[in-house]
Amino acid sequence: MKGLVALVTLLLSFGCLADNSQPLPSWQDGASRQAILAFVERVTDPASADHVERSARIAVFDNDGTLWAEQPIYFQLLFVADRVRAQAEDNPAWKTQEPFASVLKGDLAGAFSSSHEAPIQLIRASQTGLDTDAFDQVVRDWMQTARHPTSGKPFTRMIYQPMLELLEYLEDNGFKNFIVSGGGIDFMRPWTESVYGIPPERVVGSRVAKQLEVQNGVVRVVHEGTMEFNDDKEGKPVGISQHIGRRPIAAFGNSDGDLQMLQWTTAGDGARFAMIVRHSDADREWAYDRESDIGRLDKALDIAEEQGWTVVDMKQEWKQIFPE
Amino acid sequence: MKGLVALVTLLLSFGCLADNSQPLPSWQDGASRQAILAFVERVTDPASADHVERSARIAVFDNDGTLWAEQPIYFQLLFVADRVRAQAEDNPAWKTQEPFASVLKGDLAGAFSSSHEAPIQLIRASQTGLDTDAFDQVVRDWMQTARHPTSGKPFTRMIYQPMLELLEYLEDNGFKNFIVSGGGIDFMRPWTESVYGIPPERVVGSRVAKQLEVQNGVVRVVHEGTMEFNDDKEGKPVGISQHIGRRPIAAFGNSDGDLQMLQWTTAGDGARFAMIVRHSDADREWAYDRESDIGRLDKALDIAEEQGWTVVDMKQEWKQIFPE
Repeated sequence: MKGLVALVTLLLSFGCLADNSQPLPSWQDGASRQAILAFVERVTDPASADHVERSARIAVFDNDGTLWAEQPIYFQLLFVADRVRAQAEDNPAWKTQEPFASVLKGDLAGAFSSSHEAPIQLIRASQTGLDTDAFDQVVRDWMQTARHPTSGKPFTRMIYQPMLELLEYLEDNGFKNFIVSGGGIDFMRPWTESVYGIPPERVVGSRVAKQLEVQNGVVRVVHEGTMEFNDDKEGKPVGISQHIGRRPIAAFGNSDGDLQMLQWTTAGDGARFAMIVRHSDADREWAYDRESDIGRLDKALDIAEEQGWTVVDMKQEWKQIFPE
Repeated sequence: MKGLVALVTLLLSFGCLADNSQPLPSWQDGASRQAILAFVERVTDPASADHVERSARIAVFDNDGTLWAEQPIYFQLLFVADRVRAQAEDNPAWKTQEPFASVLKGDLAGAFSSSHEAPIQLIRASQTGLDTDAFDQVVRDWMQTARHPTSGKPFTRMIYQPMLELLEYLEDNGFKNFIVSGGGIDFMRPWTESVYGIPPERVVGSRVAKQLEVQNGVVRVVHEGTMEFNDDKEGKPVGISQHIGRRPIAAFGNSDGDLQMLQWTTAGDGARFAMIVRHSDADREWAYDRESDIGRLDKALDIAEEQGWTVVDMKQEWKQIFPE
């Protein structure tokens, strides 16, 4: 028995086994894991000068590239393309009309870059006119059936195991976790609770306008075509203020789109934590940063170094990327 | 001892003593209390056909006239008037400029009705240019010092004891309570957690636009002058959809401004609950309904009767109105 304990201890010390009795078992016991544990200790220890009451332990997470993957293209754009295809028969003009024509030819990159308005036009086509219940069901159905183009896995399995452990660890320590994403709020809410344990009311994202409609005496809330809020870059702190109403004490992102959220979080008084997930693993995931069109990490990486934020090297620090 | 139990039972049966061992002790054991208990039993009993999982037990509450009083004028307007007075010295032009001039003369009704734009102008004057932390502090300071014009009590004591018990009872039964108010979201959030047990992120209200500002390298979120969202009437279901992301199963209001929220809530599948607080007690509170400018209850009262919604007669059904 003593020999077994020694063997397990030895394997654990080399990071060969995930030790589920410790927090964050899929993280190597390196700088990032240690920084997270030290921060949580500081804000939860009642004797600490940096103790934060439970209700103020607000943690915000970007989604694309931080909680789930975002390559070869943001997953919501694949959803939008599938929605265009599904509605093509009812919209014959789309065959020759951009950006729809490129989508129908399978050229997503061409479609989304065909004009400044193209992404909005496509997002609009994916949801305008549907009421909240109907759009919710469309997203649920897609998550059940759609598969990632290179891994062949459902998109809800393209999430990061170490980040799931981090969400759980923070929640166990009295934090409230929120998603703050450039992605569509209504595209995320139908599945974040079952996948991440984050309920719909804790999801902040980009939104289309909605309006109340009464038809045959039935009251519905219906998606309109107007983009009402872009929850990216400068929008993220604003979205947090409007939705959550408190400045977070911890923020987690992976790209320049998260920079202002990390800056606003760390500009508050008391203990603060900012972390960037760096995509450095071309074998198990993807490797990209300063030059990438998707999830570009350039300015935020410079500022992270200046400010001493925690930068996670996925390749070095994550024993496992995706759940089994 | 037996005699004492019998005496207490007797007194309780006449509603002379609040029985704190039972839910909703400040409520007479009448139709409204029974309707609430029956609904909660239906949705929480795992054996019930109408059982609702905990995460979907969303309850929404109007604030003005539902959780706290709203006479002789919405309390936020008194706050706004105090803010105008406090800034008058720095704005000498206000002495002759409406709606400010009327406020400075003490004629609030005149100020708010001086033009269609007057309420927005005054609300704007109360918060534009302040960052989130500064405005939060302004509201906290006002709540500490300001007093209700007729009762002389702090505004945070002008809340309804029976509704506090209802919030607690629902929370004890796995509900998530949210405020959905026509009042300003940033005016409510600084005090709803300590007063109602409802944290900032569960408060939905009317909002001004905000923007990110960087000054001397410090990132702040600052209130702008534009009214971005009016969380009243048709706006309430839209605000619920955008903030909460799920249709509530129970809604509580007191005026025509809550009608659409009650309609949308009850239009969903499964067990639903809609309640209207009717201000019928001129002695202990105020009595007003169809003719009132503040909190008019007219169309919603007709529809409540048609639909069989629960209408609480404050005078008859509440043993106590305000906390001791």
